[in-house]
Amino acid sequence: MKHDLQPWIERLRSGEPRALARAISTVENRGPESAGLLKALFPHSGKARILGMTGAPGAGKSTLVDQLAKLYRREGKTLGIIAVDPTSPYTGGAILGDRIRMQDHHADPGIYIRSMATRGSLGGLARTTADVATVLDASGRDLILIETVGVGQDEVDIVRLADITVVLLVPGMGDDVQTIKAGIMEIADIFVINKSDREGAERVEREVRAMQSLAMRTDHWSPPIVKAVASEGKGIEELAAAIASYEAYLKKENLVLKRNIQNWRERLVEMLRDAMLERARAQLGDGRAEQYAAEVAQHKRDPYTLVEEIVRKAGQ
Amino acid sequence: MKHDLQPWIERLRSGEPRALARAISTVENRGPESAGLLKALFPHSGKARILGMTGAPGAGKSTLVDQLAKLYRREGKTLGIIAVDPTSPYTGGAILGDRIRMQDHHADPGIYIRSMATRGSLGGLARTTADVATVLDASGRDLILIETVGVGQDEVDIVRLADITVVLLVPGMGDDVQTIKAGIMEIADIFVINKSDREGAERVEREVRAMQSLAMRTDHWSPPIVKAVASEGKGIEELAAAIASYEAYLKKENLVLKRNIQNWRERLVEMLRDAMLERARAQLGDGRAEQYAAEVAQHKRDPYTLVEEIVRKAGQ
Repeated sequence: MKHDLQPWIERLRSGEPRALARAISTVENRGPESAGLLKALFPHSGKARILGMTGAPGAGKSTLVDQLAKLYRREGKTLGIIAVDPTSPYTGGAILGDRIRMQDHHADPGIYIRSMATRGSLGGLARTTADVATVLDASGRDLILIETVGVGQDEVDIVRLADITVVLLVPGMGDDVQTIKAGIMEIADIFVINKSDREGAERVEREVRAMQSLAMRTDHWSPPIVKAVASEGKGIEELAAAIASYEAYLKKENLVLKRNIQNWRERLVEMLRDAMLERARAQLGDGRAEQYAAEVAQHKRDPYTLVEEIVRKAGQ
Repeated sequence: MKHDLQPWIERLRSGEPRALARAISTVENRGPESAGLLKALFPHSGKARILGMTGAPGAGKSTLVDQLAKLYRREGKTLGIIAVDPTSPYTGGAILGDRIRMQDHHADPGIYIRSMATRGSLGGLARTTADVATVLDASGRDLILIETVGVGQDEVDIVRLADITVVLLVPGMGDDVQTIKAGIMEIADIFVINKSDREGAERVEREVRAMQSLAMRTDHWSPPIVKAVASEGKGIEELAAAIASYEAYLKKENLVLKRNIQNWRERLVEMLRDAMLERARAQLGDGRAEQYAAEVAQHKRDPYTLVEEIVRKAGQ
């Protein structure tokens, strides 16, 4: 199978957008070629810097990401953008949104944007995002921006993929700091207060500072707070500078590998679980699952012994 | 092992509170006797009616459950109450809370209350709740009340255990209907508007009715809305009547078994997943997990092939 994939992979690595788009779709849909593709692409990945951007709906993530993308493009960097919004069902809207955003970048082949909105079962969205990032990485993109709303466990898992995590806050959204899941606040490397010309920006800043004084990072980095008005292009250069400064810190302290090892420890267990579950489902069979469930529901069979038996059989 | 457990199981089934408490702790902590105990108890379970009660923090769940418990006690029914709150870390507070609530029931042996607040990994809380319910069920309780805050996927999973699901709403908590996870609204068999003497009760009712007009239940039951002021004991009898009426409906339509089969289909897959994951973790070993993660993080090894290899080995 690897043999058949080779020309495709070469076109992808040479930056051909159509080969890239097809690969991402294959991985997203877990098509039959998905596993072979990922195996072949993985050794070519690991070069891109992955930037996670999270914030509540309406915080201005897309605008900020687009502005940041333009800045990086001026520096000659190529980008892949993955926009994840599991709160909105996957509709034509997401695709339309991509097209509008792509047009804004004048069909610049240096920027590839992909929206993902389907919520997979059992943490599938985080895994799919990771796989799509691997494809973009292997295609030679310098930078991968993952934007996501910071509301659920899925998003925390997605943000964990990033080398650098930016958390976006805005004034006047009620109890701002509270609306984002605690787990995400804790892994923010940089805070951006967007729409900082609005009333309440100082309060948000004070809240973040108060929270920071309580939390202690194991890596001793103190996350800076950048004020921005993304819609007017204000604060974008400051954000890029903060990102560069954190990158330098990561390099100096040799933290990227450490963090990646930590992430892979967890991801390997998750991948194993998924693979095992697939095997378990196959063991349960089609008709048998229904029969087993009926026997257990009628208390004719105890589920604990049953599961032990199936696991034993799966191992044969 | 089954042999050793027999006297304990008999004391438990005869209603001895200490044997029950010890069994619940064993199951909660997944002690070495946990699996044997559950296997032995399962055939004795399946007689209790399981009632799920969910609502946001502050909606008055405990008060309503306590009032309902008193009413059922007057009818001579025995109860087990499982109070699940994964948003609060497990502290002495939960235990203290149990004691206070138990005292309120004058140490009535007909009511057994257990608080659970630890959030297990990978949906562990729902499974533990199910196992504790099995123990209470096998101990001969007529009714098991599970109360939980309706905020996360864990809670949806917990509520799925119940034969009857009551969703508690209160006026004046902002966008009331929105604060509860959509999945829970959809599985509500009965709605209670608690603190219904407050302003906004009519609005909550209108919102629920509007939502109901959109959703269609496959079982054609139309969930009633009960107005209550639990702290004053108002609406409790109406709630009990609504519960009895839904029970009669379930019986008439023979829905309990159907629903249980459906639940067990999903629970068996979850139990299998957990068992497989345990096996996967064991396969990964202690030192090996770290080594694998390091190799993958350095892109010396692709995780997709690695996972396939481990699964293959686990099957040998």
